[in-house]
Amino acid sequence: MPTSRAVPVHPRRGRLQPLALDQAAVTGGFWAHMQQLNRDAVIPHCDESLEKVGWIGNVRAAIEGTLATERVGRLFTDSEIYKLMEGMAWEQARTSSPELRERLTELTTLLAAAQADDGYLNTFYGYDGGPARYSDLEWGHELYCAGHLLQAAVAMLRTGVDDGMAKIAGAVADHVCAEFADGAREGICGHPEIETALVEMFRLTGEEKYLEQARSFVERRGRRSLGDTMYGGRDYYQDNVPVREADVLVGHSVRALYLTAGVVDVAVETGDEELLTAAKRQYDRTLERRTYLHGGMGSYHHGEAFGADFELPADRAYAETCAGIASIMVAWRLLLATGEERYADVIERTLHNVVAACPSEDGREFFYVNTLHRRTPGVDPEPGVPSLRRTDGRRASWFTTSCCPTNAARTLSSLGGYLATSDETGLQIHLYAPSTLSAELSTGRIAVEVDTEYPANGSVRVRVRETVAGPWTLSLRVPGWSGSTSITGAVETSADPGRADLTREWAVGDEVELHLDCSPRLVRADPRVDAVRGCVAVEQGPLLLCVESVDQPDVDLDLVEVLGEPAVGGSVRMAARVRPEPSASWPTADACDGQAVPVTLEFTPYYAWANRGPSTMRVWLPVAGS
Amino acid sequence: MPTSRAVPVHPRRGRLQPLALDQAAVTGGFWAHMQQLNRDAVIPHCDESLEKVGWIGNVRAAIEGTLATERVGRLFTDSEIYKLMEGMAWEQARTSSPELRERLTELTTLLAAAQADDGYLNTFYGYDGGPARYSDLEWGHELYCAGHLLQAAVAMLRTGVDDGMAKIAGAVADHVCAEFADGAREGICGHPEIETALVEMFRLTGEEKYLEQARSFVERRGRRSLGDTMYGGRDYYQDNVPVREADVLVGHSVRALYLTAGVVDVAVETGDEELLTAAKRQYDRTLERRTYLHGGMGSYHHGEAFGADFELPADRAYAETCAGIASIMVAWRLLLATGEERYADVIERTLHNVVAACPSEDGREFFYVNTLHRRTPGVDPEPGVPSLRRTDGRRASWFTTSCCPTNAARTLSSLGGYLATSDETGLQIHLYAPSTLSAELSTGRIAVEVDTEYPANGSVRVRVRETVAGPWTLSLRVPGWSGSTSITGAVETSADPGRADLTREWAVGDEVELHLDCSPRLVRADPRVDAVRGCVAVEQGPLLLCVESVDQPDVDLDLVEVLGEPAVGGSVRMAARVRPEPSASWPTADACDGQAVPVTLEFTPYYAWANRGPSTMRVWLPVAGS
Repeated sequence: MPTSRAVPVHPRRGRLQPLALDQAAVTGGFWAHMQQLNRDAVIPHCDESLEKVGWIGNVRAAIEGTLATERVGRLFTDSEIYKLMEGMAWEQARTSSPELRERLTELTTLLAAAQADDGYLNTFYGYDGGPARYSDLEWGHELYCAGHLLQAAVAMLRTGVDDGMAKIAGAVADHVCAEFADGAREGICGHPEIETALVEMFRLTGEEKYLEQARSFVERRGRRSLGDTMYGGRDYYQDNVPVREADVLVGHSVRALYLTAGVVDVAVETGDEELLTAAKRQYDRTLERRTYLHGGMGSYHHGEAFGADFELPADRAYAETCAGIASIMVAWRLLLATGEERYADVIERTLHNVVAACPSEDGREFFYVNTLHRRTPGVDPEPGVPSLRRTDGRRASWFTTSCCPTNAARTLSSLGGYLATSDETGLQIHLYAPSTLSAELSTGRIAVEVDTEYPANGSVRVRVRETVAGPWTLSLRVPGWSGSTSITGAVETSADPGRADLTREWAVGDEVELHLDCSPRLVRADPRVDAVRGCVAVEQGPLLLCVESVDQPDVDLDLVEVLGEPAVGGSVRMAARVRPEPSASWPTADACDGQAVPVTLEFTPYYAWANRGPSTMRVWLPVAGS
Repeated sequence: MPTSRAVPVHPRRGRLQPLALDQAAVTGGFWAHMQQLNRDAVIPHCDESLEKVGWIGNVRAAIEGTLATERVGRLFTDSEIYKLMEGMAWEQARTSSPELRERLTELTTLLAAAQADDGYLNTFYGYDGGPARYSDLEWGHELYCAGHLLQAAVAMLRTGVDDGMAKIAGAVADHVCAEFADGAREGICGHPEIETALVEMFRLTGEEKYLEQARSFVERRGRRSLGDTMYGGRDYYQDNVPVREADVLVGHSVRALYLTAGVVDVAVETGDEELLTAAKRQYDRTLERRTYLHGGMGSYHHGEAFGADFELPADRAYAETCAGIASIMVAWRLLLATGEERYADVIERTLHNVVAACPSEDGREFFYVNTLHRRTPGVDPEPGVPSLRRTDGRRASWFTTSCCPTNAARTLSSLGGYLATSDETGLQIHLYAPSTLSAELSTGRIAVEVDTEYPANGSVRVRVRETVAGPWTLSLRVPGWSGSTSITGAVETSADPGRADLTREWAVGDEVELHLDCSPRLVRADPRVDAVRGCVAVEQGPLLLCVESVDQPDVDLDLVEVLGEPAVGGSVRMAARVRPEPSASWPTADACDGQAVPVTLEFTPYYAWANRGPSTMRVWLPVAGS
C-alpha cells in the first residue's frame, strides 16, 4: 500500500482540502487541555478497561481456540479495540510516544494471529461452537466491526505504523468485497460503518473495488432486505427508504449518521452529485428540525433514535456522545465537499458541548447520553457493579456497550485535523484555538500561528509565519452566533456570519485580530419544539451554559422562572424567581398560593456539568409570564 | 371450593362492598355499546387471533409433547389465553351465551391435559428440550402467567363455571406455594400479578396459605434479588426499594400497578394499615405527578416505564392500555378500602379516555400505546406483516406482545361491577350509565334504576325500584370537574365535588336527578410539566377532547395557537390561528414573516380518534401569546 500523510479524512476531490496532523496542531488552551487529558487518562483508561473486562482477551481466546467457553461481552466488543487503536495511532503521530507505538504493535500482532486465512476476523461469529458468520445481518455488527478495523488500519498507515496492519486490513477488505459482491451475498449490515471505512481504504490504497463495494452497500440500503424491528420498523437501521429518496435522517442516530458519512464519501469519490445532494438534504433537514441545542442528535431512548420533527424533549434528550461524534464526521465531510462554513459552526457547537462533555474532569468517566435537563440527582452505582447504560445524569467509567469512551479518544487525538483547510487560493481557519497551521499552495508553503484565549473571550490573533510571493487568501470563519464581528490589524473590516476572506500579499509577521462577540446571549427554540415552549437558554461564544443545583443548592430548579437578560460578573448570572410549589391537584393545576421568591441564577458551561457530585441541571429555563 | 357470587374483586373487609354482576348491570348508552362491541367483536377477535397465531396451539403442543419444535410466540403468550377466559367468564355471566360457555369448557379441558402432575402449567418452560422452570425469574413471566390463570379460574368459579378449573387452579396455586415457600425458592417474579391473583384465590377458597404466599411475595420485593436491567436498573421491576418504603411508583408501569393492586389486596386482607398507607402514598403521588390527562400512566417508551415527576410529554406518551387498566384495578381497590370518591374520578377518567380508546369502532383493532399528540399521520403496515408494537398513532389487530386486547376484553365484560358499591347505610353510585343497581342491607334489598344520556349530557335520573323500612342513604359521586352541581326531585340540594349523601326514608318510585356541569372546559397542567407549558386542553364531562387533522385537513396542527374559550354548536369548537411556518434557523428561531391565519378548530372525543384513517392529532394546544 502507498504511504500517506496523517489526514483523518482524505477525499480525492471537493471544495476544500484537509490538513494533515503535521500541518495543524493545537498548541494550547481549551483543546490542548482536552488532548492532554485524552493522552494521560482517556486512552490509558480505555486500554486498561478493555483488558479488565476481557474484550482484548476475546482476541486471545480466538487465537487459542477457546472462544466457545471464554468469550465475554456483547457481540460488538471487537470494535472498541479498533477505535482505541485508531485513537492511539493519531495520538502517537501528534506527539511521539514509544508506549503507544509499542502497544499498537502488540495489538496488531494479536489481530494477525486471530485472523482467519480468508481474511475474516471477528470474535463473536464463525468459530467452532459459535454462531455462523453473517447469520444475523440485522444485529450481528460484523461489517460494523470490520469497518472500525479498517479505520484503525487507515489511521495507523497514514501515521506511518504498519506492523502487519496493512496486510490484515487488506485481507479484511478483500474478504468483505468477495463475500458481499453483487451476485454473492447481496446484503447489508444492520449497523453502517463499513461504507465510510471502505472508501477510506480506497483512498489509502487506490483499490477501486473497495469504493465499488461501498457504493453497493449504499445503493442496497433502504430496500427492506433486513427484518422488522420493534424500534420503528426498518427505519431503525435506515432500511425503509433508499438513500437517494430519503428526506431526513431517521432511526438509530449513530447508524443514520455513520451511513451518511459513508454516503458523502461515496458521492464525492464517484462524482455523484445526486447522491451528495441527497445526503446534504437529509442532514440539513435533520439539523433544522431534529437537533438539540448542544449539537446532540437523537430524541428517543427507545431505539436510541431520532424523533419526529421538533420532538426535542430536554429531559429525555438521548443525544448519545457517539451520535455527536458521527454528526461531526458528516459535517466535516460536507464542509470539505461544499465549503459551506455553517457546517463548521455545527462542528464547533458539537465539539464544545457534546464531545467536551463526555469525559469527566479526570478523564476516567464518560457520558453516554447527554441530557439537557436533570430533575433529580443521579445516584452512585453499587460498588463493583458495572453500569449497563447510565442515563441518570452521571458519567460512568465503562458500559456494557462502551462505544463512547473510545469514540471520544479517536476524536480528541485527531482534532488538529479539523482546525483548518486549504484550497488553491489559501488557508481557511474553521476552529479557533492556539495553534500552528500550514498549507502547500502551488507557489509554496504558507503558515500561520493562532493565539487566543477563546472560548474564554472572542479575540483571535493570527500571525503569518511563512508566506509565498503574490496574494493569497486567509479565510476566517465568523460563527453564526457572533452578532457584531470586526477584524483589525493588517486588514481592518467588519464581518458578517459565514467566512471573512482576507486577500492580500501577506508578509511574514503580518497579524490580524478577529473580534467575535462572546457576550452571553439568550436563545429561543423554534416554536414548534413543544418541549421548551416559553423557555430560553443562555449561550456564550461556542459554549452552551446551564444551571446546576450545586451552584444554587437552595433553589428548586423545576420551579424557576427567569426574568430579564444574562449579566457577566465573574460567572454569568441571571435574575429569576422561584414559584411557590403548586398544591397537588391532578389532573388540573391549582392556583399557587404564596409569593415567588427572587433569586439570582449562576450559570456554568454545560460541558463541565456533573463534575461536582450528584446534581440537578437545566439548560432551558421558563420565562416568567409565559 | 365454595361457590361465590360474580364479584370481580371481592375483599373481605373495607369501607365499601362491591356489587356482583347480577346486582349491577349496564342497560344502555355509552358503556352498553362498548360491552356489546366487546361481546360481538373484541372477544371473538381475540379468540380467533389466539388460534391463528398459534398461542392456543402451544397448549395443544404441550399436550402432544411437541413444544420443542412447535412452540410459537413470546414466552408470556399463555397469559393471553387466561385473560380471554376471564373475559369470557364475566361475559357469559353478564348475558347468557352457550357459545362462550362451551368455549370455556374446551379451553379448560385443554389446560387440564397440559398441566403437569405437580400442578405446573406453562408452555414456554419445563418441557424436554426447553428452558428449565424458574430459570429466569427476571424475564420468565412464569408466575405472571400463573397469576392470570388463577384470575381466570376465579372469574369462572364466581360465575358458576367449573369444568375442572377449580382443580387446575388449586393445583397451580398449591404448586406456587410449595415452590416459593419461605425456606424453599425465596424469589419473586419479574412481572407482578401473582400477588393479587393469590389473594383472590384466598378470597375464593378461604385457603390461608395463598394469602400468606402473596404476603411473602410483597415483602420480598425491593430487596434486589433480581438482576440489573438496562431499563433504569431494578426500578424496572420494582425491586430497588421495599414496598413499605417506596414513595412513588417507578419502572415498568404495568408491573408497578399490578404489584400495587396486590399490595392493597394483601394489606386489606391482613389488616396491615402500614402497608395500605404505603400503597396509597405511592399511588396518590403517582396520580399527582406522573399521570397523563387521559388517566394514562407511563411516560417512557424505553422500558414502558414511569418517568420522573412531571415528565409527561404529550407526543411520547406511552400510556399503555394495560397500564390504564391496571390503574383502574388499583383505584377500585383503594375506593373499596377507603371510600374516597376521588378514586372513582380516576376510574371514570381512565375508562372513558384510555379503555374506551383501545378498540377501534369495529372492535377488531386496538391501541397498545395512547399518545396525546401525533405529528405525522401513521401509515398502514405491509399487508400480511404482523405489528410488533405499533406506536404510530394507528391501532393494530394484534401484537407480538398482545396484552392489551384481552385486557380490554376482561375489563369491559366486568364493567358492571364497577358502577356502584354498598355499605351498611345504603348504595353508592360511582359511574353513571343507564343501569340497574341493587344491594342487600341488613334490613333487606334496595334497588334503583339509573336513566341518563351521560356522557352526552350531565343529567342523571335515579329512581328507587325497591326499598326497605327506615332511612337509607343514596350516595351520588360528584366528579371533581363539575363546577356547579345540583340535585332535584325527591331531594333538592346543591352539591360539591366528592359525594352527595341523600339520606331519607325512600319510597318506591322516588326519583332524584343529578345535574352535572358538562359544558366544555379548559384545563391547564401543573406548571412543572414542561412538555405542555403555555398549553390548554379541552374536556367535556368525563371526556377528554382532541383536535384531529381529518376534521381540519388544511390546518397544520403543529402551528396552531388557540384564542379564547371553547364553544358548543353541534360539536365543540374553538377560535384559533395558524402561525406562519418559521424559516429554517437551527439552533435559534427566526422571527416569522407573515400573518397568522384565523381558523376555527373542531374538537372530537379523544377515545374516538384514529377511526377515520391516518391523521395527526393534538390534545394540548398552545395558547396565543404564551
